[in-house]
Amino acid sequence: MSFEKVAIIGLGLIGGSIGLAVRQDMPGVATSGYDADPKVRERARERQLADVIADNPAEAVEGADLVILCVPVGAMCKAAKAIAPGLKEGCVISDVGSSKRSITEALVKALPGRTIIPAHPVAGTEHSGPDAGFATLFHQRWCIVTPPEDAPEDKVAELVDFWEALGAMVETMDAAHHDRVLAVTSHIPHLIAYTIVGTASDLEEVTRSEVIKYSAGGFRDFTRIAASDPTMWRDVFLNNKDAVLEMLDVFLTDLALMREAIRAGDGEMMHDTFSRTRAIRRSIVALGQDDPRPDFGREHD
Amino acid sequence: MSFEKVAIIGLGLIGGSIGLAVRQDMPGVATSGYDADPKVRERARERQLADVIADNPAEAVEGADLVILCVPVGAMCKAAKAIAPGLKEGCVISDVGSSKRSITEALVKALPGRTIIPAHPVAGTEHSGPDAGFATLFHQRWCIVTPPEDAPEDKVAELVDFWEALGAMVETMDAAHHDRVLAVTSHIPHLIAYTIVGTASDLEEVTRSEVIKYSAGGFRDFTRIAASDPTMWRDVFLNNKDAVLEMLDVFLTDLALMREAIRAGDGEMMHDTFSRTRAIRRSIVALGQDDPRPDFGREHD
Ligand SMILES: NC(=O)c1ccc[n+]([C@@H]2O[C@H](COP(=O)([O-])OP(=O)(O)OC[C@H]3O[C@@H](n4cnc5c(N)ncnc54)[C@H](OP(=O)(O)O)[C@@H]3O)[C@@H](O)[C@H]2O)c1
Ligand SMILES: NC(=O)c1ccc[n+]([C@@H]2O[C@H](COP(=O)([O-])OP(=O)(O)OC[C@H]3O[C@@H](n4cnc5c(N)ncnc54)[C@H](OP(=O)(O)O)[C@@H]3O)[C@@H](O)[C@H]2O)c1
Repeated sequence: MSFEKVAIIGLGLIGGSIGLAVRQDMPGVATSGYDADPKVRERARERQLADVIADNPAEAVEGADLVILCVPVGAMCKAAKAIAPGLKEGCVISDVGSSKRSITEALVKALPGRTIIPAHPVAGTEHSGPDAGFATLFHQRWCIVTPPEDAPEDKVAELVDFWEALGAMVETMDAAHHDRVLAVTSHIPHLIAYTIVGTASDLEEVTRSEVIKYSAGGFRDFTRIAASDPTMWRDVFLNNKDAVLEMLDVFLTDLALMREAIRAGDGEMMHDTFSRTRAIRRSIVALGQDDPRPDFGREHD
Repeated sequence: MSFEKVAIIGLGLIGGSIGLAVRQDMPGVATSGYDADPKVRERARERQLADVIADNPAEAVEGADLVILCVPVGAMCKAAKAIAPGLKEGCVISDVGSSKRSITEALVKALPGRTIIPAHPVAGTEHSGPDAGFATLFHQRWCIVTPPEDAPEDKVAELVDFWEALGAMVETMDAAHHDRVLAVTSHIPHLIAYTIVGTASDLEEVTRSEVIKYSAGGFRDFTRIAASDPTMWRDVFLNNKDAVLEMLDVFLTDLALMREAIRAGDGEMMHDTFSRTRAIRRSIVALGQDDPRPDFGREHD
């Protein structure tokens, strides 16, 4: 038996996209939603992000077989406590948070005795809020499910089916490994992008207007993810500290080697490194994880 | 009087795009081209990247009022010497290299007594070679012209007009300042992207296949520029060492501060930094230097 009613807590980019995707891809499945911000609820009603938008969290989850928490990582615990009074017996509680170890601990503590199966769809854009979501966001993207050891297998299978119904491909792994993998493929890239964009904004010798004008030289690629939501990303770094620091130090060691190669004029070392990195791009495009067109498919007139 | 015949040396992404753009945007202006690689010349003839593709460099520049060197930065000196025997009296020699100080010195030395006006169109894609060019590459992009102090004003004005005719906006500055600005907006971003993609390929605890699968979390954005031509980028770092090292050290200082904020769990510092960087993205989009659509306009189904 699969989920007949899905409740979505937090109606921003991810929550809104789930609501729209369920309506498009899972006819017959009912949705309800809640967001802490009344303005977001209003906009969610206008965009019909879920069939019903409730005015309090316990009401939103009533009768739901699956509840998905789509709030910033740091708000998961509070959101979990707020839904507790309305939860149906036997329902599955999941989430979409970008780090998994600390969220799993927080949810297990906030909802003792409940079936908790965390997940993370690796999909998004630089926009957030109730206007950002769209139904195809998860198509051809991976969703990582991180079931705790005692999670019932049939419920895990149902959650996997759910994400596949929304067009995603699903992989399961443990939360600690998720946090290491995502530190590399998501958290460190965001950290570096935020930092370099910050560095470039504050230089004395190169003006901000120059940075903007000549950004097509490569810099602009970093500004997209550096425009992501500050609260979401603060929470990610507060909650995946160990893996982020570990991977950051590997990167810093490699960057120091590259710095030394430049200082010493070691063209061979540079050419070697720069040649190896092309293969990764090719595989990403071949596996449908990026747009095959040059320049990400940006418009050139 | 403006240029009536333009010779293009090096028929890859930039040279090919110039050839196609002149044909499209400057009817009546003749073009000739040459590339050191016979296969590239063959392909250039098939794509008609210039009206005439010559089989030697001196022949290609005969009768040209403007010669543009479109070869990797490290090949500029050799290419300049090779055209010397064919150059017309009074012609302008320009280039498109991504660093300007060392190229200017090399060209002045290789072609004594000639009119040398270096330039750099800040436009490109991650592809290279004779199939990569297209006529609209320079539309709405900036081209930086770096005239030496003794460059004749009328010739500088003609070169500015030329780039504007191809759809570019033009700024002039001195070569040393160019090299600082581009270190920030192009060279450091490429260096960081190459390094992080290298780091991610070589990890023990996270497999390459995982890095590829979950790259949509942000990492894939870095793989595009890390797929750029290795020879071109080696030459850039060999030829803009001082400015790159200077800017890299500013970035490393900022990254160390960010590392410490993560270690200490300083959410306020992170939120502050992450909030300031959004403004830059907005300005880049507002000034037409990036695609306004979410996710660079990538396809989502
Ligand atoms: N953006 C991405 O690319 C992406 C990708 C994968 C996973 N994720 C994860 O998905 C989650 C949501 O991200 P998002 O991009 O969708 O963020 P978002 O667009 O900012 O939406 C989050 C929404 O949750 C609301 N909210 C905050 N606390 C709440 C609470 N206690 N109860 C109910 N609603 C609450 C927020 O309201 P206020 O604005 O008033 O706080 C906001 O409307 C995060 O955990 C993030 O790590 C994001
Ligand atoms: N790609 C960008 O985004 C971009 C943007 C702005 C400026 N630039 C600058 O533009 C220049 C060309 O870059 P590109 O991307 O167009 O490179 P590209 O696509 O690799 O084309 C360069 C061409 O020049 C040929 N060549 C090398 N040495 C030569 C010589 N001595 N005489 C004649 N031809 C020679 C190369 O042949 P072989 O392959 O056989 O060596 C190749 O076909 C570089 O200086 C670069 O810094 C590039």
